[in-house]
Amino acid sequence: MSTTRSPVKLEMVDAPNQPPASPELAELYRGLEAESLVPLWTEIGDLMPGAPDSSAVAHLWRWKHLLALAEQTGDLVPVGRGGERRVLALANPGLGGRPFATPTLWAAIQYLKPFEDAPVHRHTQHAFRFVVEGEGVWTVVNGDPVAMRRGDFLPQAGWNWHGHHNVSSEPMAWIDGLDIPFARYVESTFFEFGPDEIAERESPDRSRSERLWAHPGLRPLTHLGPAPATPLLAYRWEATDRALREQLALEAEGYTATVEPGHAAIRYTNPTDGGDVMRTLRAEFHRLAGDTRTATRREVGSSVFQVFEGTGTVSVGDQRWEVERGDLFVVPSWQPFSAETADGLDLFRFSDAPIIERLGMDRVETEGTTT
Amino acid sequence: MSTTRSPVKLEMVDAPNQPPASPELAELYRGLEAESLVPLWTEIGDLMPGAPDSSAVAHLWRWKHLLALAEQTGDLVPVGRGGERRVLALANPGLGGRPFATPTLWAAIQYLKPFEDAPVHRHTQHAFRFVVEGEGVWTVVNGDPVAMRRGDFLPQAGWNWHGHHNVSSEPMAWIDGLDIPFARYVESTFFEFGPDEIAERESPDRSRSERLWAHPGLRPLTHLGPAPATPLLAYRWEATDRALREQLALEAEGYTATVEPGHAAIRYTNPTDGGDVMRTLRAEFHRLAGDTRTATRREVGSSVFQVFEGTGTVSVGDQRWEVERGDLFVVPSWQPFSAETADGLDLFRFSDAPIIERLGMDRVETEGTTT
Amino acid sequence: MSTTRSPVKLEMVDAPNQPPASPELAELYRGLEAESLVPLWTEIGDLMPGAPDSSAVAHLWRWKHLLALAEQTGDLVPVGRGGERRVLALANPGLGGRPFATPTLWAAIQYLKPFEDAPVHRHTQHAFRFVVEGEGVWTVVNGDPVAMRRGDFLPQAGWNWHGHHNVSSEPMAWIDGLDIPFARYVESTFFEFGPDEIAERESPDRSRSERLWAHPGLRPLTHLGPAPATPLLAYRWEATDRALREQLALEAEGYTATVEPGHAAIRYTNPTDGGDVMRTLRAEFHRLAGDTRTATRREVGSSVFQVFEGTGTVSVGDQRWEVERGDLFVVPSWQPFSAETADGLDLFRFSDAPIIERLGMDRVETEGTTT
Amino acid sequence: MSTTRSPVKLEMVDAPNQPPASPELAELYRGLEAESLVPLWTEIGDLMPGAPDSSAVAHLWRWKHLLALAEQTGDLVPVGRGGERRVLALANPGLGGRPFATPTLWAAIQYLKPFEDAPVHRHTQHAFRFVVEGEGVWTVVNGDPVAMRRGDFLPQAGWNWHGHHNVSSEPMAWIDGLDIPFARYVESTFFEFGPDEIAERESPDRSRSERLWAHPGLRPLTHLGPAPATPLLAYRWEATDRALREQLALEAEGYTATVEPGHAAIRYTNPTDGGDVMRTLRAEFHRLAGDTRTATRREVGSSVFQVFEGTGTVSVGDQRWEVERGDLFVVPSWQPFSAETADGLDLFRFSDAPIIERLGMDRVETEGTTT
Repeated sequence: MSTTRSPVKLEMVDAPNQPPASPELAELYRGLEAESLVPLWTEIGDLMPGAPDSSAVAHLWRWKHLLALAEQTGDLVPVGRGGERRVLALANPGLGGRPFATPTLWAAIQYLKPFEDAPVHRHTQHAFRFVVEGEGVWTVVNGDPVAMRRGDFLPQAGWNWHGHHNVSSEPMAWIDGLDIPFARYVESTFFEFGPDEIAERESPDRSRSERLWAHPGLRPLTHLGPAPATPLLAYRWEATDRALREQLALEAEGYTATVEPGHAAIRYTNPTDGGDVMRTLRAEFHRLAGDTRTATRREVGSSVFQVFEGTGTVSVGDQRWEVERGDLFVVPSWQPFSAETADGLDLFRFSDAPIIERLGMDRVETEGTTT
Repeated sequence: MSTTRSPVKLEMVDAPNQPPASPELAELYRGLEAESLVPLWTEIGDLMPGAPDSSAVAHLWRWKHLLALAEQTGDLVPVGRGGERRVLALANPGLGGRPFATPTLWAAIQYLKPFEDAPVHRHTQHAFRFVVEGEGVWTVVNGDPVAMRRGDFLPQAGWNWHGHHNVSSEPMAWIDGLDIPFARYVESTFFEFGPDEIAERESPDRSRSERLWAHPGLRPLTHLGPAPATPLLAYRWEATDRALREQLALEAEGYTATVEPGHAAIRYTNPTDGGDVMRTLRAEFHRLAGDTRTATRREVGSSVFQVFEGTGTVSVGDQRWEVERGDLFVVPSWQPFSAETADGLDLFRFSDAPIIERLGMDRVETEGTTT
Repeated sequence: MSTTRSPVKLEMVDAPNQPPASPELAELYRGLEAESLVPLWTEIGDLMPGAPDSSAVAHLWRWKHLLALAEQTGDLVPVGRGGERRVLALANPGLGGRPFATPTLWAAIQYLKPFEDAPVHRHTQHAFRFVVEGEGVWTVVNGDPVAMRRGDFLPQAGWNWHGHHNVSSEPMAWIDGLDIPFARYVESTFFEFGPDEIAERESPDRSRSERLWAHPGLRPLTHLGPAPATPLLAYRWEATDRALREQLALEAEGYTATVEPGHAAIRYTNPTDGGDVMRTLRAEFHRLAGDTRTATRREVGSSVFQVFEGTGTVSVGDQRWEVERGDLFVVPSWQPFSAETADGLDLFRFSDAPIIERLGMDRVETEGTTT
Repeated sequence: MSTTRSPVKLEMVDAPNQPPASPELAELYRGLEAESLVPLWTEIGDLMPGAPDSSAVAHLWRWKHLLALAEQTGDLVPVGRGGERRVLALANPGLGGRPFATPTLWAAIQYLKPFEDAPVHRHTQHAFRFVVEGEGVWTVVNGDPVAMRRGDFLPQAGWNWHGHHNVSSEPMAWIDGLDIPFARYVESTFFEFGPDEIAERESPDRSRSERLWAHPGLRPLTHLGPAPATPLLAYRWEATDRALREQLALEAEGYTATVEPGHAAIRYTNPTDGGDVMRTLRAEFHRLAGDTRTATRREVGSSVFQVFEGTGTVSVGDQRWEVERGDLFVVPSWQPFSAETADGLDLFRFSDAPIIERLGMDRVETEGTTT
């Protein structure tokens, strides 16, 4: 038997549905502790609530504060083999100081100074970059250099080699989203170091992946097999912006094209199957036209939003914030979310919805309508 | 902004790959704490290990101890509305005293005294029962009474109403397996109380679900649509035993029918799609013939085993135990497992493999061969 | 250009929607003939009817006549390499004398005299055997001898080696169903001769495939990969009969278990995915209790039925027949079908529904309700 | 029993594997004829060849002849309700004068004079248009006007309302591809007339479907459900041409991007699942750079090609043709195909491959390598 000492500690409680305290019960609890056993009756309220009662809390991080701190790290923290990345992760105050934006999601600001490299490695965790401002960095994925520019969404599925290099004389910051907390929780993570140097130092306008894949509905005959993650490494702002403008224009012409009045939205998808870009991460972009208010909605699963442009008011649970460019906030599982704006609001969103949906745990409630 | 105080606490550390301590770094860390941010460089070793380094530990629970404690609870703990079940959960010593056999799996012994009822409820968590000895209890699932007898595997997918009643003058104990830790982690859980009384008090030999579904390869025309969980509520011992005997007999006749020499095994599957019985739980039964040793194998994802019959030696990580009927043990993610037996060993196993596989995180290594 | 002469022959027709006859039109038609072109306007009524207008006709074949003729062939026609099988195929009178029960389906009686062999071959066409009476023949599929007995359904997916041998002193007849017409139409057929002798001459009660697979919901761990066709080579009468009896019993107890009152039915399915046994063929067994009449129903796609037991009246299109054991009839695409019986009627059915459904062409109408 | 007279006619033949002629055999054959039965032994060579032996033949249609005949029909044949379309279909000389390019595929030239309409209807057959030259026609699909221009591929899945109108002062011709022969064969066809007038007479540069869907990897949140056919109604030449140019450029830079040296190719796909645009039809575009020769390849299933640009030599079975812009040719099932070009050759191709693959009948052989 394991020599590990049992950390179980049980106490008799005078409460409804609890067995009456007695010397015999105390002795039983000592026996359970010794055998590493825990009764259901002391735990059921926590384990089996009537509806999800998230430990993560609704929280907002101001971009200006993040960016200022990231700039400070530039002076104090080297980037290189071992530390690997100069990254500050959102730590949800409900999650005990761990660097987890939500129980499943990692969200962080990454910062690279002029002409710096972040060294090559690979890991099974899925990742993406999203750029709220700036440019000058190329992320090199399996040898394919991918430019990063404002508005671009840059997915990077697990186990691909990648490093970043800044070819410009300006620093650059962006956000990273990963499934680190989830992968750690299910204990599935593998990691390997790559070469210390990034070999491919070109800075082409378009990556090879885009040249092969960024043609709507056209699939190269060399790549007909299944691809569990998207082979397209950059979803450019120009396309996203155009798609959203067209939805609002179609709405104005009288056609169904928006999620609700004034609310355009696209999901980034894997062109090989039309599903999410990665098996654990969903990414979307939402545009609210001026004078728009979304329906209040709650969902099983958690999300992180970043304001890309505009201003507005967002409500999450019992929190309510005025937001502006770059601000990040989380929507924990089953907490109601809504947003409104006078002048227009562009929101990037990512979530753990593919986990929830693939395992059949999805539930959505929109202003009282449960599905 | 949330008024929650940040629980982040950062300390400067004199270690490789850590930035040098300085008053500026200290000030930066105070700033990060104030903004609920955590650097990657202090966490990367924990978050991104080279291979899964499970927090759960290999551990064994002896059936005779479990059963003795369960019998004690029979005298001290009532079963009824509120507490819902008389259940003792395995608490992995590596998981801080929480009632989690592994990070994702719940495993427990449930105990019902003569003529007792466990009241009707439903929850989104998936569950099953497995009976290592005894009989006399019927679990009533959506009004369909299902007998529970030694060797039976009784799946019960989420959100189905269920209660149990003991129709005999003997107590009965069995094990429950659920995805409670996982569902709690992803914050997806819903729960509802049913009627206080179990209405259907019949004790038929076979449930209606078996009468409709337990015919190999034959599907009722009334049930052609997709079923995310198995509609078959009982997988009877007679069938399991026969399937295993046939595999060993075929092996003896010279045909490929066993996983490896002397090792027969079946997976319990959903007859509507041939996949796992539930979206988060896999269940299997393994039979080792006398004088058999399995190959050492490790997998991403965690498992719980119960010895059904026989004796043998099992190795998990650096643990090694002699086991006998009813003993339960866990195999944490990526820890090597093997078993050997002189006289034969029957093992029931359940795991979180459907979660791991549906999300593309599966990796298996068998005596040096990684796939 | 091909030197093949054009078989196109066009005539000017004085009819609505046809261009007026003229010397110029005549000259145009000669030009089209020369270039192997055909106008849509002369063909549209045939090619694009408002609803399917089957060329196959409703037709009945009497078992007693089939069997008598099959017995005659036993005396006159050897079975051996080259001819391969002693088989008489149903030739739908609407299909020009070709051996096609419907445009897609082959249905035939096969006859094997005492101690005869039908030699080993394989073909890409999918096949099954169904036994309305008799026994004594084993079909050997990839070396696995499979007994054939009354009521058994014996699927045999394409490209498996197979031969038959009669180990008894009685002749035996059964029906074969295949997708020969479909495979020929899409020009996908491959065929190979096997050894002249059947090597495996055992006559076990159960095949190895049954020993591995005929356990409800239990899947051997050696066979977890996808299987496009069922690995179970025999669906025994005892199981089919029991499943149908249970459905009627459950109906009598007040539960939903039958397709409609008095009408029990099962579909034979692939245990690895819950779908049809083969990619082009569906097989079902329907039991009508006494004093039952089915709703009239029509479907896109064609079927062949064989009466297994009992008597009744079946209606197909404008045909109406009294039927009895062994009688075979076809239901062409979109022709209404119903059946009624005073004393009970057991019907085996096979169809091309998997083709229709996989290609999204399915449509069903039940007594006026279209889906 | 059906009153239809049997069309079966059997003759005794003095040949290997045929039963010896005798009065008894003659009498048996008369009996089989009377009962509408056909022996396998007289048919097996035709029904079960060693490999597909297509009845369709390799054949070429010259665009200049097609176009000249289409222009003649413009003067002689009205287009309107009843005839529905002014269309000339390729009639494969091996298929008895029927308007079938191959057993499964319809290919035709359609011709619309200045300011003409082709009236609105819908049918379950899947269709597309491909434009080798010209412009000025809009096809209106469920009220969405879609411009047709050189190089565009315009899919139109079954059961959508559609009509065409020519808004220009020039006639326009294009090719239509459909699954008419297949749908007729399986007897699945439904057809309905729409309004006599096309209501939507706008001529926008881009259809609403493109405005919603032609953004690579971006899916509108309003359309997340499964779509069995592509919702994108136009695949524009500019995108196709760019994708092919990029493949050849990547090849020149040393990356794998082409099917074989000098041979770029894309498949038109459904952005909702990455599969074929329609359930029965595949469409691709192939570009051969100058001085390129493809490997010889044969496949189960049939194809139609149209030369879009350039010149070259194509070989199909034992045919060999010099081809130029607009020429159409068929590749029957399992006939070897290759192409070569000195100056470059652009080929549009469509086929029945989705039928073949969905039913598991696909087989490919490339210069001796079978897969």
